[in-house]
Amino acid sequence: MKTIDVCLSPELMHLYHVRDRTIVVVDILRATSCMVTAFAHGVESITPVADLNTCRMMKSKGYIISGERDGKKVQGFDKGNSPYEYAGSDIRGKRIAFTTTNGTQAIEKSKDANKVIIGSFLNLSTVVKYLLFGENNVLIVCAGWKGKVNLEDTLFAGAVIDKLRNHIEPDCDAPLIAHDLYTRAKGDMVTYLSNSSHVKRLDKLDIHKDIEYCLTPDQFDVLPKLKNGVLTLS
Amino acid sequence: MKTIDVCLSPELMHLYHVRDRTIVVVDILRATSCMVTAFAHGVESITPVADLNTCRMMKSKGYIISGERDGKKVQGFDKGNSPYEYAGSDIRGKRIAFTTTNGTQAIEKSKDANKVIIGSFLNLSTVVKYLLFGENNVLIVCAGWKGKVNLEDTLFAGAVIDKLRNHIEPDCDAPLIAHDLYTRAKGDMVTYLSNSSHVKRLDKLDIHKDIEYCLTPDQFDVLPKLKNGVLTLS
Repeated sequence: MKTIDVCLSPELMHLYHVRDRTIVVVDILRATSCMVTAFAHGVESITPVADLNTCRMMKSKGYIISGERDGKKVQGFDKGNSPYEYAGSDIRGKRIAFTTTNGTQAIEKSKDANKVIIGSFLNLSTVVKYLLFGENNVLIVCAGWKGKVNLEDTLFAGAVIDKLRNHIEPDCDAPLIAHDLYTRAKGDMVTYLSNSSHVKRLDKLDIHKDIEYCLTPDQFDVLPKLKNGVLTLS
Repeated sequence: MKTIDVCLSPELMHLYHVRDRTIVVVDILRATSCMVTAFAHGVESITPVADLNTCRMMKSKGYIISGERDGKKVQGFDKGNSPYEYAGSDIRGKRIAFTTTNGTQAIEKSKDANKVIIGSFLNLSTVVKYLLFGENNVLIVCAGWKGKVNLEDTLFAGAVIDKLRNHIEPDCDAPLIAHDLYTRAKGDMVTYLSNSSHVKRLDKLDIHKDIEYCLTPDQFDVLPKLKNGVLTLS
């Protein structure tokens, strides 16, 4: 039986052998939720970029530049980190360069894996089907918050494990932790997360609507994949 | 209100400022359970040692040398990592040098904190009282398993948070995760942990008795404290 493990923070990535694995990168609030929304609305590609300056310079090459630091849109950038900014027709056929506090760093650390896909509640079932029919063992990489573990990414890992539990075996304790938390939370994830540090931080930025949106499963059937440092649907 | 946070793996210690904090180091299976048992049975001091050779050399200085790697006693050492080895009169008044896979490394990484104490279910209420009446913010450092997060240390963190929840505020998401898991597990921790990777690993070594013992709260009222690299009760 294939195995599934969960890396609860990018700071723990050095503990995992990734070359033969499929990695699911997740940053529920809000990078990977934005990315999935953008692909569902026809974006051609998203290039994850680790630093602000590199991202800024891509503007002159025709990219839409998107950026967030500490939950806030970066001054001078075209778009921030609210998924609603990626749900319009203005991005159809465009290329985006994207840099965020946690999500794009997690993608960077995952790039040596056999396959890298982007996960969120919005495309949960599509992620699960891909993992189920793939040959590789699985590692879910939670973006966390500045290296620390967070609830919402852990819950997503638990949701994936819940759906795959009869087909893929948990490897180590982190998947058990994630699955148990999801079992507690799944009835009402918005309420459950209302105490989390990240939701409290984001609530100050008045984006409760974003949070509800990002916790809604199965809105889209797109599956962004990383190839040569660029995310596309192909 | 004071705050409490949980470092789920020693590999995440660089994310925490520790100088003003009281750190509780926990390695339920089995280093800190052994240490608490040893102090309850009259040991004078325990010197945590990171590597096997340093520990071996302390034999000629009159130390009892104790060591475990991968859950097994080290050849040529006086004692291993079963708490029952530390419950006899032979250790009364003696000094122990102790090296383990995870626990002694977690202590080493905690040494810059304002105060460092040793926690286990065996001395749970004593730990809680000390934290309650102390002035510092608290960090619980889980030893984990070779850098990865484990269930049993996380459950201990959750138990501490549960008892302190009206007096000390959780800081970040890791305490919420630990507390929720403990709430699920507390009715029967032995059964709950029977699926964990560490318990499966230890079950192969036929130490189910040790596991039950290490999950039993409030057997002793001792509180080992680290000073100048040495654990004592003073």
